[in-house]
Amino acid sequence: MNRARAKQLEKDDKKFNWHPFTQMKDWEAGPVTVIEKGSRNYLMDTNGKRYLDGVSSLWCNVHGHRVPAIDKAIKKQLDQIAHTTFLGLSHVPAIELSKKLIPLAPKGLTRVFYSDSGSASVEVALKMSFQYWRLKGFKKKRTFLKIQNAYHGDTIGSVSVGGIGLFHKIFGPLLFKTIAAANAEEASQILKKRAREICAVITEPLVQGAAGMLLQPKGDLARLRKLTRKYGAHLIVDEVATGFGRTGKMFACEHEAVTPDFLCVAKGITAGYLPLSATLTTENIYKEFLGEYKDFKAFFHGHTYSANPLACAAALANLELFKKNKTLEKLQPKIKFLTQELEKIKSLAHVGDVRQVGFMAGIELGPYPLAEKRGIRVCLAAREKGVMLRPLGNVIVLMPPLSITESEIRKLCTVVKESIENITEEM
Amino acid sequence: MNRARAKQLEKDDKKFNWHPFTQMKDWEAGPVTVIEKGSRNYLMDTNGKRYLDGVSSLWCNVHGHRVPAIDKAIKKQLDQIAHTTFLGLSHVPAIELSKKLIPLAPKGLTRVFYSDSGSASVEVALKMSFQYWRLKGFKKKRTFLKIQNAYHGDTIGSVSVGGIGLFHKIFGPLLFKTIAAANAEEASQILKKRAREICAVITEPLVQGAAGMLLQPKGDLARLRKLTRKYGAHLIVDEVATGFGRTGKMFACEHEAVTPDFLCVAKGITAGYLPLSATLTTENIYKEFLGEYKDFKAFFHGHTYSANPLACAAALANLELFKKNKTLEKLQPKIKFLTQELEKIKSLAHVGDVRQVGFMAGIELGPYPLAEKRGIRVCLAAREKGVMLRPLGNVIVLMPPLSITESEIRKLCTVVKESIENITEEM
Repeated sequence: MNRARAKQLEKDDKKFNWHPFTQMKDWEAGPVTVIEKGSRNYLMDTNGKRYLDGVSSLWCNVHGHRVPAIDKAIKKQLDQIAHTTFLGLSHVPAIELSKKLIPLAPKGLTRVFYSDSGSASVEVALKMSFQYWRLKGFKKKRTFLKIQNAYHGDTIGSVSVGGIGLFHKIFGPLLFKTIAAANAEEASQILKKRAREICAVITEPLVQGAAGMLLQPKGDLARLRKLTRKYGAHLIVDEVATGFGRTGKMFACEHEAVTPDFLCVAKGITAGYLPLSATLTTENIYKEFLGEYKDFKAFFHGHTYSANPLACAAALANLELFKKNKTLEKLQPKIKFLTQELEKIKSLAHVGDVRQVGFMAGIELGPYPLAEKRGIRVCLAAREKGVMLRPLGNVIVLMPPLSITESEIRKLCTVVKESIENITEEM
Repeated sequence: MNRARAKQLEKDDKKFNWHPFTQMKDWEAGPVTVIEKGSRNYLMDTNGKRYLDGVSSLWCNVHGHRVPAIDKAIKKQLDQIAHTTFLGLSHVPAIELSKKLIPLAPKGLTRVFYSDSGSASVEVALKMSFQYWRLKGFKKKRTFLKIQNAYHGDTIGSVSVGGIGLFHKIFGPLLFKTIAAANAEEASQILKKRAREICAVITEPLVQGAAGMLLQPKGDLARLRKLTRKYGAHLIVDEVATGFGRTGKMFACEHEAVTPDFLCVAKGITAGYLPLSATLTTENIYKEFLGEYKDFKAFFHGHTYSANPLACAAALANLELFKKNKTLEKLQPKIKFLTQELEKIKSLAHVGDVRQVGFMAGIELGPYPLAEKRGIRVCLAAREKGVMLRPLGNVIVLMPPLSITESEIRKLCTVVKESIENITEEM
């Protein structure tokens, strides 16, 4: 792209756009990186600079960019139909996708309810659980038990079951009341006393992503499953970040052999191509909503583009690639290699902690006051060196596409190490 | 498609899918129409049967199905990049889209915040308004004034500002408190007394779609704009259904020369191709969120696929087609023709009312008890005759793609008339 056009795009971005989770004063003051192209595990900006995609374009890319099989699947679906509604009608790609998805999901999950974002997949689970208990006549069940520091999305329902102060505090008066537990141990005490009020326990399995890659105590997921069974509450597992291979298995639930009542998936479902999400649930829950039309027991929820055929076509191609490329098998040595490379970063003077589950890693700097923007500055330094990252406060997140190569992992970690050294050794 | 495969797809749909807004007992019992292809204003199912798309695939399709210019734009963008994040980065198609969208929107709207669904675009407006008043120090402002029977989506925040009992009543304990007014007159009384508590008034302009195509009193939109200015509250206009030509103008706001503080758009933005939504707002509101990073005044909200490049490419092609095809100009005689055709339906014995704004029409049957499913049965009868519809209770909705021809409008209305006669003349 010529420089004049690149400059104009940057100017127009600052003039017309309001970016998510962004202090726009800083944005307007700084240079804006405008992505023009992608290829394999790289992004390219309008000035022709290439960047290794170190966070999978916000934790969603799986097989890299411009994957021939996925591009082809979308183009093929375009030649059939781009969109037809899932309200009162069905269509080919969504049926095929559900049929492929169910056998991959934890055993016992039999039904797929589609929506358009991770937030929406959580809202669906919350509303289904809530309505289920109404239908069963358990009217006292009207709250949810969440884990401290959780993040489940940004719509009001999903914010209500979240606990990140910075994101959520300001909206307090709009949120419904929930109960927070630090972990499964504390959840056990609460359930013992208050199960009658609790529709469901909601949790991120193994690791709380947005909270800063906080590892959950080993066994907590399985324990929450046992507790919810014992006390008669649903278990909602939010695999928006962890699903589709990110933790080394197709779903994080497999690490602790858990089948939740609701499994929320999004991000990686389309390999990072298109917005699509789904809430998977059991036949037991599904059946509670069956009845005569006149009793209005149906689940009255739906989005215009739920189960969008183009997105379903991308998701189908994604699942086929997992199989064809043996993605999970090939991922295992790469996870070990990432662990080794992270060891070198762990030893840095200003690194407080390094946390990793599969291909999800967090490097905690400092402690530093957030206002020093050390995380952002490390990522900007890495960007200069050709690695694209996005931090969570003082935590540098590494979450590469599953398709990253060993030499690219080495590059990623080397650049991150150097960038941390640059920024943490300043006073 | 061969019959065996079509049968298998139908079986699989019933086994694996949970459809939105659907009593699945009826769904499992009945035949399922599985869409395989589209072409212009028609859908085709797996048995090769063609249907005129009478509700624009749930009110979103604009120029028909398989539009060469839109297909081409998506394929071209696929060859660049399918997705890159809008958090901390920008990309070409979203910048170009915002630059095209702002001049088309009511004057004074200058900023675009992207999300993935109409519900999310409303949640963004609610949260921005709420945070704006916190930032300004108006801490008593913590509720919203809504119009009775409103529908703004299905996530908890958007449900909170809705008022359709059937959809919303069951979730009462999860909703935040709001104030409802029947119309602008009543809103005036409420604002006079309680403006100190009210962040914003939220409304569907001209017509409440999901409520059953209920026409709003003429001038109410402009009056709400004056009232909110006078009493110091925001005006949120939800044009998810009405936007992009549906009422005969690009945005319904134009009919009453209104610029809201927040304009929510979705459905038609991508011409009915892909999930994308946006909340447009003013520079005045945007500026209130600017500040030092350390003050955390930013709007902490964002979805992974916000401003998805493929969806933005479809939206750009959509806006170009509006211009190239003179879509709005050509729509005017078609609106008049639809009015004429509706006249013939109005005179039927069991039609209570016919309501129309541009290309949005509702034909109210009866009165009949909802349990008789007259609306659904009329639509199934029309489906037999090759017209695809979806009712709202006893209201038959007609909302064809803007690309429908006069002869197709005639077919649509003739089939609807016959189907109403078939179903309402039964006892």
